[in-house]
Amino acid sequence: MLPPLRELGMALRSRELSATDHVRDVLGRLGADTTGAVITLDAERALAAAAALDEELARGSWRGPLHGVAVGVKDLIDVAGLPTRAGSDVLADAPPAAADAPVVARLREAGAVVVAKLHTHEFAYGPTGDVAATGPARNPHDPTRITGGSSSGSAAAVASGHVPLALGTDTGASVRTPAALCGVVGLKPAYGALSAQGCFPLSETLDHVGVLAPDVHAASVAWDVLSRPDGTGGGIQAPGVDGVRVGVLVDEYWRALDPALTAAVDTAAARLEKGGAQVQDVRTPMIDELAATYPVIVGAEAYATHAHWLRERPQDYQEITRERLLPFADLHARAYVDALRTRRRLTAALRAAVDGVDVLLLPTTRLRATPIGAEEVEVAGSRVPVRPQLLALTLPFNLTGWPAVSVPGEVTDGGLPAGVQVVGVRLEERGVLRVAAALEQA
Amino acid sequence: MLPPLRELGMALRSRELSATDHVRDVLGRLGADTTGAVITLDAERALAAAAALDEELARGSWRGPLHGVAVGVKDLIDVAGLPTRAGSDVLADAPPAAADAPVVARLREAGAVVVAKLHTHEFAYGPTGDVAATGPARNPHDPTRITGGSSSGSAAAVASGHVPLALGTDTGASVRTPAALCGVVGLKPAYGALSAQGCFPLSETLDHVGVLAPDVHAASVAWDVLSRPDGTGGGIQAPGVDGVRVGVLVDEYWRALDPALTAAVDTAAARLEKGGAQVQDVRTPMIDELAATYPVIVGAEAYATHAHWLRERPQDYQEITRERLLPFADLHARAYVDALRTRRRLTAALRAAVDGVDVLLLPTTRLRATPIGAEEVEVAGSRVPVRPQLLALTLPFNLTGWPAVSVPGEVTDGGLPAGVQVVGVRLEERGVLRVAAALEQA
Repeated sequence: MLPPLRELGMALRSRELSATDHVRDVLGRLGADTTGAVITLDAERALAAAAALDEELARGSWRGPLHGVAVGVKDLIDVAGLPTRAGSDVLADAPPAAADAPVVARLREAGAVVVAKLHTHEFAYGPTGDVAATGPARNPHDPTRITGGSSSGSAAAVASGHVPLALGTDTGASVRTPAALCGVVGLKPAYGALSAQGCFPLSETLDHVGVLAPDVHAASVAWDVLSRPDGTGGGIQAPGVDGVRVGVLVDEYWRALDPALTAAVDTAAARLEKGGAQVQDVRTPMIDELAATYPVIVGAEAYATHAHWLRERPQDYQEITRERLLPFADLHARAYVDALRTRRRLTAALRAAVDGVDVLLLPTTRLRATPIGAEEVEVAGSRVPVRPQLLALTLPFNLTGWPAVSVPGEVTDGGLPAGVQVVGVRLEERGVLRVAAALEQA
Repeated sequence: MLPPLRELGMALRSRELSATDHVRDVLGRLGADTTGAVITLDAERALAAAAALDEELARGSWRGPLHGVAVGVKDLIDVAGLPTRAGSDVLADAPPAAADAPVVARLREAGAVVVAKLHTHEFAYGPTGDVAATGPARNPHDPTRITGGSSSGSAAAVASGHVPLALGTDTGASVRTPAALCGVVGLKPAYGALSAQGCFPLSETLDHVGVLAPDVHAASVAWDVLSRPDGTGGGIQAPGVDGVRVGVLVDEYWRALDPALTAAVDTAAARLEKGGAQVQDVRTPMIDELAATYPVIVGAEAYATHAHWLRERPQDYQEITRERLLPFADLHARAYVDALRTRRRLTAALRAAVDGVDVLLLPTTRLRATPIGAEEVEVAGSRVPVRPQLLALTLPFNLTGWPAVSVPGEVTDGGLPAGVQVVGVRLEERGVLRVAAALEQA
């Protein structure tokens, strides 16, 4: 495992550790990765960048807390000089991207070194991470199980301790769910807070760029760098939660199927309460109707993107991706317009319903990592489809655009990781990360 | 004719004229209106409001330049206590609106007195103003001709000198085109600058609230009141255009069919140049493709609004409205998503193409007022459909959301009014109004 970013950054800044040695270490770890997380290693350019950053530092110029830090990038996001394959044979012959996506460029300006493109669920259209041209990504905690997706490789590489930070995207679950299933931290900022330019679109009204990191501190550093031109902000200044109003969602919709997840949220709520937070129940009667707009919106927008390729080269899609997209050929414009209107109306209603709290606290998913390839699993004697259980608790905050972070919860059964989600109602990203930090300090 | 707002406002402020007398005068004029502009006169409440404003002023409290000024409101915009019928028998039994639309409330706060609801093309879905449950609106310059629409009654009432100011809405033409055809000023602010809440939607991604007024000064006063919480701004401070870069659009798309319109724009350009503006030609090769997204976007959004009523009470629509809406039942979501994407992409391309100028100068319409009911007219030996000619030059700036004003141009053939349009590229509403003021000072 790599040291935490806080220690790594100090070692790099003090030149106790050179960027070159750190990047070489990371390249070695990624080269030996067995989770399927790595799509492209960019070793030569990464080492050249590290050497240049070492020289800069030797001259006394320090770019900030990411100076010389290796980062991985989901293979849905453009990195200049590398193809963006989006997990699909449809893009097997994609030319190298002409330019870095703005989020990648921003990380580089801050001294980060891009070392690899990482696994994604095909075209980001799935929360499992086991559907891709290169095969499934494997959960570092159990290689027979999924990582969650679609930022599958980013979560797996961070959870394996192979890279200290990775970029992902999140349209309904895709940063938070793999973070939860792999036991790392995943931040989805507010809609539009980070540019999604240079990211292969899944659904432009729902797509968010986000960050996967081993701990809240590292996610906060990345957030500061990505959100502020000067990269200042300095992590979590005031980790307390005294006086923070925490809403716990009590409607049936929000209930996890795996009791370990419910227990993790209960433990988290108790911890926040002990820290001085006010925890209260919150009801959201509109959630089922709001959530029902999600597949229509994603389907309409994704189909419009893929219609041409679905006709020209259907065989290049993974079968399940193709079969999920094709029905949207028949979707009427009215259904999509209605979904957008319902989304707008019920986002306002949801906002009003939770108006008395600063953050919401809930499980990130309804299930923990399921077996690779399983479309259904048995829970408490009945079979449930996997996909919705990995999307249901995260997608509402893509519809609303509110910031949300998944942080590993306390698991007492010795089993797989369980993600606890903190969603900002009256708090922005830094406030949400502060609450997450309080949960982490166990 | 009423006196200009500048004089009217001074007379009201000095109490030389009471609000009560002014409102009674306006109610009398509107009561005798023969253009079909008036849908509902709100005489009793208007006189009560005027009396209260007279008392306020007698106590020394003056609300600003609209204190005691009568205003008309397009019957697509909610006025508390009055039904919003939107020109349709579908809403024949609409209950009184529970609240004023925010734009109406803002005018009232500033001392304006709502006197009437005014004619609209049915559901605002047409630029002619001759399709409505109450029959056509008639052009004050020639009662056999259209007013243009959809803010038909607002334009006719202002042009008749029956009311000093009126609210309208503009989705593709609906403030500027009737202003042009009736010879008054019509301001469509930037998209989202004024709340469209409380306005019956035609197309939520294109709908704008705007103002119709007899002159640029009155439009500027209304804009100040509507856009600034304190109503300050004080009209056109610096009417000069010295150094303003004016782009004249030279592609075929932008050409008027009526030579009087071309001549009016030429005269306007010469006047601005004489005032120190730099006039240059501008090419916009993407305009045809951009404009082609308009009917798809409006059709999809309007159909979604009307689908229920089209099924339940089709006979309550005017036939042409129904026949124009119904085909969108079959529109696929993909076509609408594609149209929105094309719109976004080509708006950026258009912005880049006109980047070197501050404003664009062009005709407001391709034709002047056509005969009521005519769907085609003969121009230079060939038949052309009326509707597109009244939309083509205005709709691009609903797609882009840029501010635009139509101001009466100079007509040398003694015929009907010809509107000249000023569109803000690097200038906001106040800058666009300043250029319009320079054109008006002839």
